[in-house]
Amino acid sequence: MSPSSSTPRDATEAIDTPGASLADVGEFGLISRVTRDRSQPAATLLGPGDDAAVVAAPDGRVVACTDVLVDGVHFRLDWSTPEQVGRKAAAANLADVAAMGAVPTGLLVGLACPADTPLQTLEDLASGLWVEAGLVGVGVVGGDVAASATLVISVTALGSLEGRAPVLRSGARPGDTVAVCGRLGWSGAGLAVLTRGFRSPGAVVNAHRVPEPPYAAGPVAARAGATSMIDVSDGLLADLGHVARASGVLVDLWSATLEVPARLVDVGSALGVDPLHWLLTGGEDHALVATFPPGAPPPEGWTVIGAVSTGEPGVLVDGQTYEGDGGWEHFSR
Amino acid sequence: MSPSSSTPRDATEAIDTPGASLADVGEFGLISRVTRDRSQPAATLLGPGDDAAVVAAPDGRVVACTDVLVDGVHFRLDWSTPEQVGRKAAAANLADVAAMGAVPTGLLVGLACPADTPLQTLEDLASGLWVEAGLVGVGVVGGDVAASATLVISVTALGSLEGRAPVLRSGARPGDTVAVCGRLGWSGAGLAVLTRGFRSPGAVVNAHRVPEPPYAAGPVAARAGATSMIDVSDGLLADLGHVARASGVLVDLWSATLEVPARLVDVGSALGVDPLHWLLTGGEDHALVATFPPGAPPPEGWTVIGAVSTGEPGVLVDGQTYEGDGGWEHFSR
Repeated sequence: MSPSSSTPRDATEAIDTPGASLADVGEFGLISRVTRDRSQPAATLLGPGDDAAVVAAPDGRVVACTDVLVDGVHFRLDWSTPEQVGRKAAAANLADVAAMGAVPTGLLVGLACPADTPLQTLEDLASGLWVEAGLVGVGVVGGDVAASATLVISVTALGSLEGRAPVLRSGARPGDTVAVCGRLGWSGAGLAVLTRGFRSPGAVVNAHRVPEPPYAAGPVAARAGATSMIDVSDGLLADLGHVARASGVLVDLWSATLEVPARLVDVGSALGVDPLHWLLTGGEDHALVATFPPGAPPPEGWTVIGAVSTGEPGVLVDGQTYEGDGGWEHFSR
Repeated sequence: MSPSSSTPRDATEAIDTPGASLADVGEFGLISRVTRDRSQPAATLLGPGDDAAVVAAPDGRVVACTDVLVDGVHFRLDWSTPEQVGRKAAAANLADVAAMGAVPTGLLVGLACPADTPLQTLEDLASGLWVEAGLVGVGVVGGDVAASATLVISVTALGSLEGRAPVLRSGARPGDTVAVCGRLGWSGAGLAVLTRGFRSPGAVVNAHRVPEPPYAAGPVAARAGATSMIDVSDGLLADLGHVARASGVLVDLWSATLEVPARLVDVGSALGVDPLHWLLTGGEDHALVATFPPGAPPPEGWTVIGAVSTGEPGVLVDGQTYEGDGGWEHFSR
């Protein structure tokens, strides 16, 4: 940081008024507020407040990943509460840890936001991070906050492989089955609803606001011998495309196995959209999709939706190229 | 990420033109470009390209910290090259790892930037991260990129304590000596020069653009028995203030021991500033300041600059409250 003529404030000087903003309490005041009264789990050997945190890495390795969420791109504060945004930011990262077959051990957050951001917004955002972290028994172990014209949340998740090899995108082999665990298409349907100016049905809108990744299913799949795994953040076809190319295999999905929830059928009817499109291309539900070797039935809670074979790396649906949008990458024109 | 009507691009579709922007190559194209031809050190057990990286944590613990740098706040692209910005972003985090007495093991980067950011800018920024990471023998193991109106770089550094206890801010005890390793005031002087519209002398301007933290001195101090340590990111007085309050001690600095480099004397004369002010309050050089127990001489390269005693927690200079600016916190009014 750079020198200025301002006097530094301590957390103890923080101003406690309902309309207070980040500028009123400063960086240290905010950090003090969002970390106080938080109890850290055993894996947090040293929590926030020093130059760095220390987190347990029991098997001598640490899984680490970072995801960035930007206001207006990945979320809208007029569509979601700050707490929902915090939960979504944490979930995107925790799902990545699960997709390696690992269990999360901690979160760090890099937050950039306008100096006039209400303190309540930031406290709620932090609460959302803590709520989602709490679902997997970890804490927010550290972070930083800086002034920025745009609200940007960069979350880093750490995890433990519990002695196992990581489950990579590149391990799918011809003959493997493809299976999924978790919701598909709900967030995409919710986004379609919100985009058209509606706020209901709540089930799909809330699915877009806060995903429900099946975190525990990642390590379970790893123990069951999963040969490859990825979380569905960009859409089933897009993410299986990563697996297909990394593994050098062809993935064929069987559309009849993709059960379309009644709720999505209803929303599809109302909006004139084939709900299968959301299941195949909708991102952000963070379902886990994995491949399992021949003869190894997927664990309970997983549904077989296709098979791996030799061929030009890619993904087919019922043997055909899917004609709809294959997924989402937000810089492409 | 959210669905859109755009077609995803693969890295292989990346457009190779001199004027290409992030929007031309997409998220995956950029990641492919900035990770190709990079060799990872042994600590990187799994590098970029999967849902998460895997990094060695040999003693069963991982040190982790995050720092956020924002365009126009922590750097200006008309003052610094993108490579210098990348180096600075990495340095701020690597210095935090060193300040725990740890050695870095890897970096992750969360980048938010305008979609029309030139590809060359982003490649240079990534090169800067790699250059600085290379100074301590680590790699950029993962990250994410997203579209944002503001350029924000959130870096997470990981590190290893090599079996030692972390050196905290809270360990200073009355009777300890205070010692510093690394530059003080250079970045502050450089910022003063740049702020007044000058571009020289290069030595101080470049010190502001790219700090030179004494990374190796952190673990050396830990092995020498340092009781507390912090890196000087906000200014010597401000950062020692954190140590004083966390430890519940009074720190007295002896100004006669703070040797003012001839270069800073010259810049001070030219700008009409007492250069001692930069040494006491200038941030971003990321020197390391530590306390050592009585009878334990600080390691080679460290200079004793004061002592710890009992008293109201705070920092004095020659027994007096320093009347200048105590440091910098960028949200305070």
